[in-house]
Amino acid sequence: MSLVVRNIPRAEPGVVDALAGFGVSTVHEAQGRKGLLAGHLRPIYRPAKIAGSAVTCSVAPGDNWMIHVAVEQCRPGDILVVAPTSPCEDGYFGDLLATSLMARGVRGLVIDAGVRDVAVLTEMGFPVWSRAIFAQGTVKETVGDVNLPLVCAGALIHPGDVIVADDDGVCVVRRAEAATVAQAAARREANEVDKRAQLAAGVLGLDLYNMRDRLAAKGLTWVDEAP
Amino acid sequence: MSLVVRNIPRAEPGVVDALAGFGVSTVHEAQGRKGLLAGHLRPIYRPAKIAGSAVTCSVAPGDNWMIHVAVEQCRPGDILVVAPTSPCEDGYFGDLLATSLMARGVRGLVIDAGVRDVAVLTEMGFPVWSRAIFAQGTVKETVGDVNLPLVCAGALIHPGDVIVADDDGVCVVRRAEAATVAQAAARREANEVDKRAQLAAGVLGLDLYNMRDRLAAKGLTWVDEAP
Amino acid sequence: MSLVVRNIPRAEPGVVDALAGFGVSTVHEAQGRKGLLAGHLRPIYRPAKIAGSAVTCSVAPGDNWMIHVAVEQCRPGDILVVAPTSPCEDGYFGDLLATSLMARGVRGLVIDAGVRDVAVLTEMGFPVWSRAIFAQGTVKETVGDVNLPLVCAGALIHPGDVIVADDDGVCVVRRAEAATVAQAAARREANEVDKRAQLAAGVLGLDLYNMRDRLAAKGLTWVDEAP
Amino acid sequence: MSLVVRNIPRAEPGVVDALAGFGVSTVHEAQGRKGLLAGHLRPIYRPAKIAGSAVTCSVAPGDNWMIHVAVEQCRPGDILVVAPTSPCEDGYFGDLLATSLMARGVRGLVIDAGVRDVAVLTEMGFPVWSRAIFAQGTVKETVGDVNLPLVCAGALIHPGDVIVADDDGVCVVRRAEAATVAQAAARREANEVDKRAQLAAGVLGLDLYNMRDRLAAKGLTWVDEAP
Amino acid sequence: MSLVVRNIPRAEPGVVDALAGFGVSTVHEAQGRKGLLAGHLRPIYRPAKIAGSAVTCSVAPGDNWMIHVAVEQCRPGDILVVAPTSPCEDGYFGDLLATSLMARGVRGLVIDAGVRDVAVLTEMGFPVWSRAIFAQGTVKETVGDVNLPLVCAGALIHPGDVIVADDDGVCVVRRAEAATVAQAAARREANEVDKRAQLAAGVLGLDLYNMRDRLAAKGLTWVDEAP
Amino acid sequence: MSLVVRNIPRAEPGVVDALAGFGVSTVHEAQGRKGLLAGHLRPIYRPAKIAGSAVTCSVAPGDNWMIHVAVEQCRPGDILVVAPTSPCEDGYFGDLLATSLMARGVRGLVIDAGVRDVAVLTEMGFPVWSRAIFAQGTVKETVGDVNLPLVCAGALIHPGDVIVADDDGVCVVRRAEAATVAQAAARREANEVDKRAQLAAGVLGLDLYNMRDRLAAKGLTWVDEAP
Repeated sequence: MSLVVRNIPRAEPGVVDALAGFGVSTVHEAQGRKGLLAGHLRPIYRPAKIAGSAVTCSVAPGDNWMIHVAVEQCRPGDILVVAPTSPCEDGYFGDLLATSLMARGVRGLVIDAGVRDVAVLTEMGFPVWSRAIFAQGTVKETVGDVNLPLVCAGALIHPGDVIVADDDGVCVVRRAEAATVAQAAARREANEVDKRAQLAAGVLGLDLYNMRDRLAAKGLTWVDEAP
Repeated sequence: MSLVVRNIPRAEPGVVDALAGFGVSTVHEAQGRKGLLAGHLRPIYRPAKIAGSAVTCSVAPGDNWMIHVAVEQCRPGDILVVAPTSPCEDGYFGDLLATSLMARGVRGLVIDAGVRDVAVLTEMGFPVWSRAIFAQGTVKETVGDVNLPLVCAGALIHPGDVIVADDDGVCVVRRAEAATVAQAAARREANEVDKRAQLAAGVLGLDLYNMRDRLAAKGLTWVDEAP
Repeated sequence: MSLVVRNIPRAEPGVVDALAGFGVSTVHEAQGRKGLLAGHLRPIYRPAKIAGSAVTCSVAPGDNWMIHVAVEQCRPGDILVVAPTSPCEDGYFGDLLATSLMARGVRGLVIDAGVRDVAVLTEMGFPVWSRAIFAQGTVKETVGDVNLPLVCAGALIHPGDVIVADDDGVCVVRRAEAATVAQAAARREANEVDKRAQLAAGVLGLDLYNMRDRLAAKGLTWVDEAP
Repeated sequence: MSLVVRNIPRAEPGVVDALAGFGVSTVHEAQGRKGLLAGHLRPIYRPAKIAGSAVTCSVAPGDNWMIHVAVEQCRPGDILVVAPTSPCEDGYFGDLLATSLMARGVRGLVIDAGVRDVAVLTEMGFPVWSRAIFAQGTVKETVGDVNLPLVCAGALIHPGDVIVADDDGVCVVRRAEAATVAQAAARREANEVDKRAQLAAGVLGLDLYNMRDRLAAKGLTWVDEAP
Repeated sequence: MSLVVRNIPRAEPGVVDALAGFGVSTVHEAQGRKGLLAGHLRPIYRPAKIAGSAVTCSVAPGDNWMIHVAVEQCRPGDILVVAPTSPCEDGYFGDLLATSLMARGVRGLVIDAGVRDVAVLTEMGFPVWSRAIFAQGTVKETVGDVNLPLVCAGALIHPGDVIVADDDGVCVVRRAEAATVAQAAARREANEVDKRAQLAAGVLGLDLYNMRDRLAAKGLTWVDEAP
Repeated sequence: MSLVVRNIPRAEPGVVDALAGFGVSTVHEAQGRKGLLAGHLRPIYRPAKIAGSAVTCSVAPGDNWMIHVAVEQCRPGDILVVAPTSPCEDGYFGDLLATSLMARGVRGLVIDAGVRDVAVLTEMGFPVWSRAIFAQGTVKETVGDVNLPLVCAGALIHPGDVIVADDDGVCVVRRAEAATVAQAAARREANEVDKRAQLAAGVLGLDLYNMRDRLAAKGLTWVDEAP
């Protein structure tokens, strides 16, 4: 049986927006280096930087029917997350679906498959992270699930989790951890301001991070000339 | 024996230009979801959107000699289509060959191999769809064929077929079907104008396309909360 | 034992800058079609075109510690060349390391692995050629070598070799051959000026390069119609 | 903080063994076409066909320390499931670790990374499904988790879930569903005995499955000669 | 509209069997180095060496319905050739379909997608050349064509063409050229008997093929010590 | 200018044979985890386990002429190492060349490209490690070098270096280090005999290698139940 779950919890809008500002690399670090989706997901245009609540959608290979079903479950501030049940690079998504999602206030699409109409999507300013760009059309024959947990590009995503996406890729933050992660990211970013200034002034990371002793202890040796 | 065929039929210029306007995704749909070249062909710059008549050219791996031969067979409005006889990502094509093709009115290059000088090609505004960008030079030792049918990136292409290429990829339209496909594409595009307006106004695809009954018949079930 | 070599020879700055001007494809041809790094190295933004002296750095998979060590060995005009000891696409490098390298006058990074913070790197104008863009963080546990010869993306690179990098990819020129290669590249480029003009005027490469007789001798045959 | 969970629930041994007998394709179908790990996991020798309870283990790239930790948590009838926190093909596992696992009655290894000593593993009869065979050694510097849920080759796996692996690949069955899936698989297999006999006798699937009317309704047309 | 063509011409059985004996590499050479399918097609077991008449079948991604349709069109001595309309590695084919094909005297399967039940297929001795081994099941919703020309793994195949497949891969021979190619292959093989004997006796290919002068003319130079 | 170097130094035969016995994984570890060729090199049959002195040969893409030249430079106990100057998977090598190499006492082939006639090569017992199996024929038009240093599958190889190859892949040992590495490998292997016995008896690696304290110091925590 295929299911569509109507009501899902979502994170605080303020927390989501804060996470968008920090970006993927910082958020990923702030939560202990977890939550990254696989690196084959690439933005169709750059720069792009968003965060939102995940509406999840599983689709059959070569079949985009369930995306139409998922649209109805989306609210302002959401990001639609689509994963095929077996690997597929067909063009599941184009400008008509994007029009519909924008009308509902959706911030972007993350899809472990292909998309098309990318020139129009770029003009519209609707950001997409996908595995491929491919014009191949899809059918509407097989149903799947909306708002059940799924694995997208190697990461487990629950409906309502926060998705952060930018030029570096895509990261998922558990809804219950979002506020804590946002605070950790803020601390991390604050911490980097001073470091960046020192590095720009020529201070070496070796000294800034006190690495020299530990490197020597691991056996690293400096010589003046190649042996 | 290797052959160069001098005279090939070409589609009506008006039809070709119409197909360029519709773009790859629409044309591919309009002809019944066929004719796409493999998704690994990517434009060297975006946006780019052309159509033209195919001049076909087979080349040996690491050998671009036949491209020089093919240039002579090109006319204004053509697109040169190059496929290696075994997989190769060498840089078969650069700015000198592009200068020569532009002098003959050629609209672009589709090559299931590598190209180079992409910064200059971008400045020149000569669009290329290729499998790779790679500076590796090629030799001139082995002959191939010009204007015989070939398979390029998984699609069969006859000389004189219409090639449509844009940011979504590359599509081939049989010459004899070009006018009919252009008409179907026009109908498809007209049909989408109204749909786009309705979707932008918030009408759901589920309702616009009357999908709800068929989804339910397939067993899709809506629930308020996750089970 | 892991080593850091402090003093390496470097090529003449004038020669290095000349090589930057010619670009990868011309330099690669001028030195006899050798020295290209694998085509999977791509610039994080385009256009970009640099040359510099290689400071080499080997790193463990998922461990960017040695990049911090290598920074200290870099001087104005250098390019940092990083290769993992086994294949890895983690994000070894971001904006803090780039800030440090820019403070030392380093011209860019070539890394056969992943990088992150690419939006910031693009704003900063710090060019990077990498195998991947991936936010995955790295640890600091294992030491490697700085300024020993290494293989990066399939090419052998000695410290102090000249690295040329542009939109076509990356090429290495042996330090001892740099001046000679620059001269050969200059001749090649001068030679192309006239050719480009003739090709733009419609002269065919078949005639410009006197190819017709040799093609016929190889069995190439022109026919008016397809057989 | 990294965790090792000592006590995990496991499925009934009889159910596990029944699932081993049915094999991956049948079990995957019997549970509704879900649970497959990605197709890049391949057995190091064939034939091989096992099932067991999952002990899960996350490892850093290029670091196999946690496998040593996981060994202690394994019991007779288990299968060790290892996933790196970012993609890595290093040789995490060889004959010494296999000796240790065999001593504890472990039935096999599923690892989304590389293994080595495959000739010895084959002689020992210790089956492994891996992403790669690669001799590259690993370090012991970074800790991970044992017996927490993880994503391995695109599938979510909980400790104690049943892993089924054979020449077709690897499938996970939720522990709580294992008995039901085994029953469904038994029904499916019984059902196929009769079908196989009929097909072997020359009855067509078109007739056995009553497909002709539905095919015709979809527009399929039989013609005597190609148009 | 989807079509099934019932009557297709086939090559002489004696010619087909002769081609099987020569194998892929010899046949491919004998017909002028053309006709190879892409190298990603691999036999599920080795050794295997067959030839037969192609029955062609196009399938939708993740949908094996048309294979059931194609079975009916197969006769003794045929090889079923299946290509998806967009790339897919799902397990389209297993032991039940193989049972049906063996009952009809079909010699093997060539499929640019995935298969499953490979342990049983190996026991049955039914050879398959596929892009992948993957247990993922497929649906039966979308129709395609049987016995129309198609592109499979980059090669154009007409119904009734001769398919030759062995451990080296898969090759197609046009039906009308099959007898000529078989004769050329026989000559080639006879020619190699004497060469093999001379090479085994220590005669160098350099001398047997008179390569020394031409190599020297190309600039090859022998030196006693490395420069 | 292309060069063939006639005289190259080779390692002691006894040392070479000792390295063959240890195999790739042990040798790679014994020399400090360096020297591995890329994991995409796979044996055409298993098991296979050899070592020999490298005769190196660079070839143009799609052109195997230089392999014929290299044969003459091979002596009993050698391994031929072939690398294309740009990536290529064509079938450079088949049973005739293998016959010639066997007549000269060559122990095997390592090639970062494709080979063919693998069924015959298997019957002959001539081991090959290659990037691909592909029947595509090659031409004889372009010269390269024999017995100059080259990069093969990402590793730098000097003529006369020792190549070790088995089911785990391929490793290079510098000629000057071969005796020392063989001694280190012998110590490593002796050391493992006792470890293997203890592990087989149920002693845990955690205890055998005294890992528990260091793991705890890194923050690893054991808990009885999942949190």
